[in-house]
Amino acid sequence: MPDQPLVDPHPHPPETATARAALAAGSRSALAGRFIDLVADKLVATEAVFRHHLDSDVPFIHKAGEYISQGGGKRVRPALLLLAARLLGHDLGNDGDEAVTYAAVVEFIHTATLIHDDIIDHATLRRGQRTLNHLWGNNLTVLLGDWIYTKAMQMALSHGQIEVIQRLCQATLKMTEGELLAFQRLGAPDLTIEEYFEIIDRKTAHLFAAACSIPSLIPPQRPEAGQVLARYGRALGICFQLVDDLLDFTARESELGKAVLSDLKEGKLTLPLILLLPRVDRAQRRLVEQVLEDRSFSRVSAQQILDLVRAEGTLEEVTAMAEEYATQAKRELEFFPPGDAREALEFAPDFVLHRRS
Amino acid sequence: MPDQPLVDPHPHPPETATARAALAAGSRSALAGRFIDLVADKLVATEAVFRHHLDSDVPFIHKAGEYISQGGGKRVRPALLLLAARLLGHDLGNDGDEAVTYAAVVEFIHTATLIHDDIIDHATLRRGQRTLNHLWGNNLTVLLGDWIYTKAMQMALSHGQIEVIQRLCQATLKMTEGELLAFQRLGAPDLTIEEYFEIIDRKTAHLFAAACSIPSLIPPQRPEAGQVLARYGRALGICFQLVDDLLDFTARESELGKAVLSDLKEGKLTLPLILLLPRVDRAQRRLVEQVLEDRSFSRVSAQQILDLVRAEGTLEEVTAMAEEYATQAKRELEFFPPGDAREALEFAPDFVLHRRS
Repeated sequence: MPDQPLVDPHPHPPETATARAALAAGSRSALAGRFIDLVADKLVATEAVFRHHLDSDVPFIHKAGEYISQGGGKRVRPALLLLAARLLGHDLGNDGDEAVTYAAVVEFIHTATLIHDDIIDHATLRRGQRTLNHLWGNNLTVLLGDWIYTKAMQMALSHGQIEVIQRLCQATLKMTEGELLAFQRLGAPDLTIEEYFEIIDRKTAHLFAAACSIPSLIPPQRPEAGQVLARYGRALGICFQLVDDLLDFTARESELGKAVLSDLKEGKLTLPLILLLPRVDRAQRRLVEQVLEDRSFSRVSAQQILDLVRAEGTLEEVTAMAEEYATQAKRELEFFPPGDAREALEFAPDFVLHRRS
Repeated sequence: MPDQPLVDPHPHPPETATARAALAAGSRSALAGRFIDLVADKLVATEAVFRHHLDSDVPFIHKAGEYISQGGGKRVRPALLLLAARLLGHDLGNDGDEAVTYAAVVEFIHTATLIHDDIIDHATLRRGQRTLNHLWGNNLTVLLGDWIYTKAMQMALSHGQIEVIQRLCQATLKMTEGELLAFQRLGAPDLTIEEYFEIIDRKTAHLFAAACSIPSLIPPQRPEAGQVLARYGRALGICFQLVDDLLDFTARESELGKAVLSDLKEGKLTLPLILLLPRVDRAQRRLVEQVLEDRSFSRVSAQQILDLVRAEGTLEEVTAMAEEYATQAKRELEFFPPGDAREALEFAPDFVLHRRS
């Protein structure tokens, strides 16, 4: 099942297609459980806040909000934020409410980014359901993304912590810049490793870092712990994106909720191919270039590309790099005394590494 | 000259095309002077802040930022904010800096809205120069708009006044909702007067209200004055949009910086035609409907539509309504003791009513 939510937001009774599918699919992985069980109740609360704020008296926002809420999503960023809050001792009473708000805010920002990215990628499927741009066109979708970004900032303001909004603005600017850099190099067969890491750092790692470090801004503020958590989140974010890019080669369409090799088809060169290109002969390089030029598998089949990366072993190399970032993330947690929240955060990199969607 | 800036941001020497054109065009209107002369120095400072923050280490943002800065704009919202700040006694030292920041922020938000609106309207010209979407395509333009929105929020945070960001978020949400409502009724020949006012209130009047009332949030806060200034701004914003919609019928292309009757051509029914439609016969109604259907003047000429509104006198009726809102705005200012800032704010509605672009 594509992008199964880690936590079922509607346990009794299953109200939505997502919830029904989640129940039908049976249990989630043991790794996911070790990662999120500790904050499962807070994730359910986050889901409710997410749904509640994704609404307006403008009928289209109401309709699109329902559609987005049903679409699920792994809620990795909210889970990280809630665990970091617990790690810092913010898991009770009002502090919990504050963390839940920020968890929903981070997912709002992530959602707005996806919505605008899908326009740019001309994507038709996301998490196994039709994209908003595909359903309602680019124009409504641009405005809806704007609305969700602004709503996120408004929600973040509700607890009066100006540093939190500052952090969120920084991360959002970085993300937008990452997308701009990526778009400007779309279709380029000469994207360098450095450019690739620059892009994924901005477009993915900074929001992970923000999610993990925001709880350190809830009073009593913990600046040093915040820096450690930001480094943890950034390494985990890079790991997450490396795995995301690997899944485009290795996952089945039914798991991923979108076509495999869609990155290449959209003109995006990712690390497995960046590593491969300088090592293969001219004819093999042309195969990759032709897909980038055509933005389709008309002259070259997806299987030809898959055979190429399998022969060169770059998927394994990128997996090893992702594991290295996972290890780096875990190492940061040694700053904190052992405990249940630290343990759950230590499982997060394993969950990210072994996810299938 | 299209959309001549009220204040020349580069008096010595004229560095940009806009500045050169502004000097070549000679003096601005006497009304504009009465409106903005009092804060001319602060508007120059605002322009510098605007340019400074519209920059990034991402090359595209740098390039697009320069292009936007050169494009000018009347800077009506910053002028209103700066005058309201002066009216409340915030015109000296550090307070001035704070008002200048917010003035630039309001113009940033307005700019981001225009950038995304131009995508939706498929606009090719804005203020006499090519739109960003026309020059660089929709994708970069979506991301650039996101970046500017977020940058505006980040800038607004710099003085630590959480109420200011709250006000800006509210206004931005309203604007986006107004655009969504407008887009969903695009091409509809049965748009009602109520719907029209609902749309212009959200898409224009709320940001005017925010611009005028934000200075009341600078300590020492003045909530009652803030409410009066918000009402002033809202009435002035509606007046502004009514005049904007009138100019689409009455201005010359060389003044407006875009084609006349472009609203109708884009499928937007504005008040002069909403008032007209129930009064004319079926054949005349069909003329309007055909342009809405075709989104072009292929079957019906612009002159035929202009003849229709002139015969029915609805331009005069809308002008009278705009004057009514102008009067209402001025009346709000009686709350304040007489003085130079109040006098300048009293001229703003006249400037808005008599502008030609």
